[in-house]
Amino acid sequence: MAKLWQKEGVSTAAEIDRFTVGRDREMDLYLAPFDVLGNLAHAQMLETIGLLSPTDYQQLAAELKRIYPKTQSGEFVIDDDVEDVHSQVELMLTRALGDVGKKIHSGRSRNDQVLVDLKLFTRSRLWQVAEATQRVFNRLIQRSEEHKNDLLPGYTHLQIAMPSSFGLWFGAYAEALADDMLTLQTAYRYANRNPLGSGAGYGSSFPLNRTLTTELLGFEGLHVNVVYAQMSRGKTEQTALNALATVATTLARLAMDVCLYNSQNFAFLTLPDALTTGSSIMPHKKNPDVAELLRGKCNRLKALPMEVTLVMSNLPSGYHRDMQLLKEVLMPAFDDLLDCLDIADFMLEHIQVKPNLLDDSKYDLLFSVERVNELVLSGVPFREAYRTVGKEIAEHTYLPPRELHHTHEGSIGNLMNDQIVAFMNQTLAGFGADKAQAAETALLA
Amino acid sequence: MAKLWQKEGVSTAAEIDRFTVGRDREMDLYLAPFDVLGNLAHAQMLETIGLLSPTDYQQLAAELKRIYPKTQSGEFVIDDDVEDVHSQVELMLTRALGDVGKKIHSGRSRNDQVLVDLKLFTRSRLWQVAEATQRVFNRLIQRSEEHKNDLLPGYTHLQIAMPSSFGLWFGAYAEALADDMLTLQTAYRYANRNPLGSGAGYGSSFPLNRTLTTELLGFEGLHVNVVYAQMSRGKTEQTALNALATVATTLARLAMDVCLYNSQNFAFLTLPDALTTGSSIMPHKKNPDVAELLRGKCNRLKALPMEVTLVMSNLPSGYHRDMQLLKEVLMPAFDDLLDCLDIADFMLEHIQVKPNLLDDSKYDLLFSVERVNELVLSGVPFREAYRTVGKEIAEHTYLPPRELHHTHEGSIGNLMNDQIVAFMNQTLAGFGADKAQAAETALLA
Amino acid sequence: MAKLWQKEGVSTAAEIDRFTVGRDREMDLYLAPFDVLGNLAHAQMLETIGLLSPTDYQQLAAELKRIYPKTQSGEFVIDDDVEDVHSQVELMLTRALGDVGKKIHSGRSRNDQVLVDLKLFTRSRLWQVAEATQRVFNRLIQRSEEHKNDLLPGYTHLQIAMPSSFGLWFGAYAEALADDMLTLQTAYRYANRNPLGSGAGYGSSFPLNRTLTTELLGFEGLHVNVVYAQMSRGKTEQTALNALATVATTLARLAMDVCLYNSQNFAFLTLPDALTTGSSIMPHKKNPDVAELLRGKCNRLKALPMEVTLVMSNLPSGYHRDMQLLKEVLMPAFDDLLDCLDIADFMLEHIQVKPNLLDDSKYDLLFSVERVNELVLSGVPFREAYRTVGKEIAEHTYLPPRELHHTHEGSIGNLMNDQIVAFMNQTLAGFGADKAQAAETALLA
Amino acid sequence: MAKLWQKEGVSTAAEIDRFTVGRDREMDLYLAPFDVLGNLAHAQMLETIGLLSPTDYQQLAAELKRIYPKTQSGEFVIDDDVEDVHSQVELMLTRALGDVGKKIHSGRSRNDQVLVDLKLFTRSRLWQVAEATQRVFNRLIQRSEEHKNDLLPGYTHLQIAMPSSFGLWFGAYAEALADDMLTLQTAYRYANRNPLGSGAGYGSSFPLNRTLTTELLGFEGLHVNVVYAQMSRGKTEQTALNALATVATTLARLAMDVCLYNSQNFAFLTLPDALTTGSSIMPHKKNPDVAELLRGKCNRLKALPMEVTLVMSNLPSGYHRDMQLLKEVLMPAFDDLLDCLDIADFMLEHIQVKPNLLDDSKYDLLFSVERVNELVLSGVPFREAYRTVGKEIAEHTYLPPRELHHTHEGSIGNLMNDQIVAFMNQTLAGFGADKAQAAETALLA
Repeated sequence: MAKLWQKEGVSTAAEIDRFTVGRDREMDLYLAPFDVLGNLAHAQMLETIGLLSPTDYQQLAAELKRIYPKTQSGEFVIDDDVEDVHSQVELMLTRALGDVGKKIHSGRSRNDQVLVDLKLFTRSRLWQVAEATQRVFNRLIQRSEEHKNDLLPGYTHLQIAMPSSFGLWFGAYAEALADDMLTLQTAYRYANRNPLGSGAGYGSSFPLNRTLTTELLGFEGLHVNVVYAQMSRGKTEQTALNALATVATTLARLAMDVCLYNSQNFAFLTLPDALTTGSSIMPHKKNPDVAELLRGKCNRLKALPMEVTLVMSNLPSGYHRDMQLLKEVLMPAFDDLLDCLDIADFMLEHIQVKPNLLDDSKYDLLFSVERVNELVLSGVPFREAYRTVGKEIAEHTYLPPRELHHTHEGSIGNLMNDQIVAFMNQTLAGFGADKAQAAETALLA
Repeated sequence: MAKLWQKEGVSTAAEIDRFTVGRDREMDLYLAPFDVLGNLAHAQMLETIGLLSPTDYQQLAAELKRIYPKTQSGEFVIDDDVEDVHSQVELMLTRALGDVGKKIHSGRSRNDQVLVDLKLFTRSRLWQVAEATQRVFNRLIQRSEEHKNDLLPGYTHLQIAMPSSFGLWFGAYAEALADDMLTLQTAYRYANRNPLGSGAGYGSSFPLNRTLTTELLGFEGLHVNVVYAQMSRGKTEQTALNALATVATTLARLAMDVCLYNSQNFAFLTLPDALTTGSSIMPHKKNPDVAELLRGKCNRLKALPMEVTLVMSNLPSGYHRDMQLLKEVLMPAFDDLLDCLDIADFMLEHIQVKPNLLDDSKYDLLFSVERVNELVLSGVPFREAYRTVGKEIAEHTYLPPRELHHTHEGSIGNLMNDQIVAFMNQTLAGFGADKAQAAETALLA
Repeated sequence: MAKLWQKEGVSTAAEIDRFTVGRDREMDLYLAPFDVLGNLAHAQMLETIGLLSPTDYQQLAAELKRIYPKTQSGEFVIDDDVEDVHSQVELMLTRALGDVGKKIHSGRSRNDQVLVDLKLFTRSRLWQVAEATQRVFNRLIQRSEEHKNDLLPGYTHLQIAMPSSFGLWFGAYAEALADDMLTLQTAYRYANRNPLGSGAGYGSSFPLNRTLTTELLGFEGLHVNVVYAQMSRGKTEQTALNALATVATTLARLAMDVCLYNSQNFAFLTLPDALTTGSSIMPHKKNPDVAELLRGKCNRLKALPMEVTLVMSNLPSGYHRDMQLLKEVLMPAFDDLLDCLDIADFMLEHIQVKPNLLDDSKYDLLFSVERVNELVLSGVPFREAYRTVGKEIAEHTYLPPRELHHTHEGSIGNLMNDQIVAFMNQTLAGFGADKAQAAETALLA
Repeated sequence: MAKLWQKEGVSTAAEIDRFTVGRDREMDLYLAPFDVLGNLAHAQMLETIGLLSPTDYQQLAAELKRIYPKTQSGEFVIDDDVEDVHSQVELMLTRALGDVGKKIHSGRSRNDQVLVDLKLFTRSRLWQVAEATQRVFNRLIQRSEEHKNDLLPGYTHLQIAMPSSFGLWFGAYAEALADDMLTLQTAYRYANRNPLGSGAGYGSSFPLNRTLTTELLGFEGLHVNVVYAQMSRGKTEQTALNALATVATTLARLAMDVCLYNSQNFAFLTLPDALTTGSSIMPHKKNPDVAELLRGKCNRLKALPMEVTLVMSNLPSGYHRDMQLLKEVLMPAFDDLLDCLDIADFMLEHIQVKPNLLDDSKYDLLFSVERVNELVLSGVPFREAYRTVGKEIAEHTYLPPRELHHTHEGSIGNLMNDQIVAFMNQTLAGFGADKAQAAETALLA
């Protein structure tokens, strides 16, 4: 695509169009199925308040249901001279139905449409993320159980600290994702409120029935106040991106561990060839590029909430065109995180764990706390036992007690992964995704 | 305080101490009451598993209950040669009880203690924020009801758009806070999980009963996996700061509106003298400094989650000392937001609303949509009515229909504030703050 | 493009490839001309140290000069099975010249190539930005001179303060851009250092002549230390993006002023129809969408340095694959800012200024400082004069002295735009862009 | 200090005062010496334009010179009922000189004073940072020379790559700081422009001589346009903080390397006891807390430019009170970075380097590129040599050629640290700090 600046100056309306439309048409394709759903609900409501005749409504609904599958198959396109998905759908209705097609815009503004589409889109994608997160979670739980007896050096300050296990390590990231699900759920609930009927942010003098569209679209509730409904623009995106960043933070840290543990100086893990690449000059290299890109992509995702903050900061209330740009921040972020989750799942499936790591004498010091505890259980006060073992280490008389008796909740010998799974399932059930999906199905029936 | 760099080079252990301790002692005072609570729960648990005798436990518990009130009254201090609150409490116990005081450290590491203190502190402060937010919410609802008939120009793109009302404007910010409460609740629930017993992140070989300390401290549940429990450091702070930033975002936008509406070019609001200041050279000035500082302080709070992200990014799993610095980010943030909420409440209480704003003819165009809708209701298709009114405006024949009939849910004539209040109350009930407070009271009884 | 996650799980090498390659091929097209330049310099140097025969060098140079125009015309493509621009160029050389084509990789690693390409690309684009910034600067100076006598209310705290002028307002943004040029220059100088010969970050055992490639490519100097040369990855991008963000900050603030001054409540400016858009429901609207998008796009650009920071934070020294992702942050940012600069120029060209704004009595108070100064010049101490005028205003006896005598440097009556222009030109001369361009021309000759 | 929110609601003017003053009095102490300098220059200029009599000027100058030493010794305080440093200085003048003290405010607003103080403060502190950075730079160069023959494994992707040396490693960070100096210089130059005379952002009707105060205060030049001079608020802080963040980025990465290289799994470095701390439960631990805190503190500093961005974004032109808060971001940042630089210097002085690291057979693969190059120099094409060595490694016939011949510019055998030192010195000379210091000395003479 030719760039504006290549001509050294703006000269035509076309160039301003290019600046204002930007990547909006591309982004609007994400919204197309949800625009159809929003139209279906709005039309049905207009019919109940007498602003559409039953016949008009029937025609509109039938035509909208013909458009919907095209939004799924990739056939739906936005014509070059049409500025957005909303105009495109209206154009398709008008082409098919004549003046009837125009009647659907009553009691609604374009801001209204963008917002309801955005809510439905975000709700849908957040659920996809929740499901993909659950798959990675399940993988982690499975690997944790599989390797619950494989010990691993535990570090603090990057210094050898105490014995850990692969069971604990995999399980820790599983529990991290279970907690991240709470943030996803909050974002889902925030996306799951109905702005339709708020118009340009000041409502309408038509006797709209917003409660009805709330039910038809399967929303948890209304964004009640119409000024606030429009204020939810920006906040919806930010809340969703915060949730994505939370999951990304967990994945990035996991990827950092993998890169480190895969280094020859740690050598705790082996990655299959599919997950490594070579070097153009060093014939011996097997670099963990996939884990590094996972880490890097997730770190980029962590920047996105700030991008929304910067666009929105100090804007007075009321819609501003700046908000259109948030689509370009939000929409690709879902694709990126979903990619990352899939790759993380594949990586976790194929990571090979090195056995018997703690047999290496360089890890003897991991057991110093065990030795202290032996003394404590034999009656020595803790502070004295601590000093004794310090002395043993300094004088090279220390013998690591390699037998481990970690039995309490959440420790090496008692992972309690079932409790983590239960917590995960409980949070997922709280989304209310069933209701949303049932409503969408009913609208299209 | 003398700065390290004033001496051009580090020469003594004292200077390294200053660098490593930093503001930690100051921050630890925030944790003192919660450290006592954590000690009480840990001691009681140790007694049930035989690591403390009943007598030792009685002595420790009695002494801890003597220390607690000092943490409330300001009497509790951290001695100059003591590095943190945990050591200080242990020192006080040892001074009072001799060797018995030392026994309480069994089955626990300092990381463990910091983390449980931090969870209890964060839980407590988040609830304070929730209550202060509710006060501002109540004020907004009250002002909304009071001014539900006072019309206000509504803007989009900072252009005159459609009629709004002060009822809508105040109510919009109330609903914003009601939604922000969801994020506060998620942060509260994340803070409300028990890390105690995770040791330095790798558990303990003592037969700790973590379920018991969970109950004693009134936590919603366990951070099960001990590696994960320590990984919650950083994430706890971030989740809390994200929630504070959400509320700050709402307040900042409100403050921006106030500054704008207070400008002579809008003149929608009057601020009392207590909320304005003069200029050193312009005798006529009444500047809205309080609203500006509210905006600025809230904007600063929005930066804090990124500060945590930067400290934590790409740190491998396991504790790192960097995390100590997060206290300095987290703790003052609560004070700052609580101050902002109080000032916002005061400002909202005293804002005076200008009546009859829409009588000014410069706002005639606000009613153009009303005129379009009149035509639509008389049978003209929307797109044609839109063109007609455009023509009337261009030809100066447009007459604004000043009678408003906005009746649908959430519009000028039907604010439905009661539904917003109900949603707020439902979210607050979901925190589980009662259980936490009851547990703390029981421990101190 | 099919997304990984649409298949619910990664199953094939192709999908991992897609994840690792990402948008890299698209980004690498930006680098193509610079890769050719880097190859030309490297080949010439290899010939001087005997690693290429004169004949081989002649052939390689001739072929590279055949490739270069294709990188300018859009003909250059990266084949589907080729992973990056460096491999593509090498493939084209090998196709044309057989084994001779392969010899050019001696004494070089792919990291080396990426880095030198990136430096040349960044240097080139920063100069484009500097030139576009200068165009906007010139426009602002021109408008400032044109409207030096058109007064404008000056605000502090969004409150009416003192008289200003359009001359001052346009000129202020010109001077802002002149100062921003210092940051652009620093970024340019940082991009303008030669990393070639650093290999994968640990140099080479070949007797490379890095001083020669520095001269051939017209760099200001060497990144001397080879470990540091590779460390400049990330920092080069960040320094450049910081400079872009500086310019974006100036444009965003200008755009905010335009949006505000275009509001009916200020009405200081009129925008031509080409720069406004209508509303789907409000027939009277002329929204300043172009200015809003300019503001929003510039605000997004301000987030990009943080994105780089997040990818790079806490990565140990040495290359990591994460850094590849920085291309996607850096490269489109130049296009975006160049677009914004062009649109800003167009907007500034067409903004119409409202005359005689200060005749409106609502701006009488702007002259209160003039009244104070009158009294001071007649001998009244400042603090007393200040109180007197305050009293006049309160008692409605205040008469605005509309005659202005602002004569000092930089004030309404003495803009000194020539001095600002001189500063701008001096900074531009300090880039050293001539030397860079001459070197590139010579290489291609 | 009692917090506002502890009383559950704002009730008195005192509480609003606390909110608006915030930490401003504390921050203003940083400005005190510079306020005196600004006053001296302003008074001298007022005398030349007849707004102060020679006698008045003499008295004012004498008194100001009496105040200055107090700002250095810590005796200078801001009284409880005085709101800022500017009022305090004026109060001290008035107490000493009566009405003469008040005359100094002519032709100046408080915004003017804050800004000139801020410029002088920032200029001064940036130079301190430059000097402290130079000390660390010198240390790195010294250690680089000392250990130029001590080899170190070089990594890419955290995988063993090619031989490096401590000479390269220390030298790389030295060159990083030399480049960071360019950004510090830009910030210095931006701080080194005179805003005095811009009043509240709209100049003055007094015939001020801004060129004179520019010379008296040793500024490089004027912020010419008075509207722009005030716009430099926010930008001055941001430019300075960006420069600090640049240095912090270098130190943070160095600290990450130290933490990693100090891990038992790398064991490249030893830290003296003064730089490590123990664990409360693990008697064997020597944790690199100082390096971790250095890393963490520097990572926090990297967040500060964004904090300024958030406060400033989308504020229209003209002063807003929000900007006062930037003092709290800027001023402690200098102290923090200066502390970090001192600690980094101390750490670098005392780090002990492990000799003969590459004798360990696990690092044999570091020499695979040497082996490839041997083959290339014997006539084998690069791509074929690469394959041969790969085969040798796979078949365990590979023998590492441990003799290194790295001789080109910037490689192991040819560090060229002198060139790096020369670049550093050249940049430092470009600050113009001598002129500034001479002017300050002359004013106080």
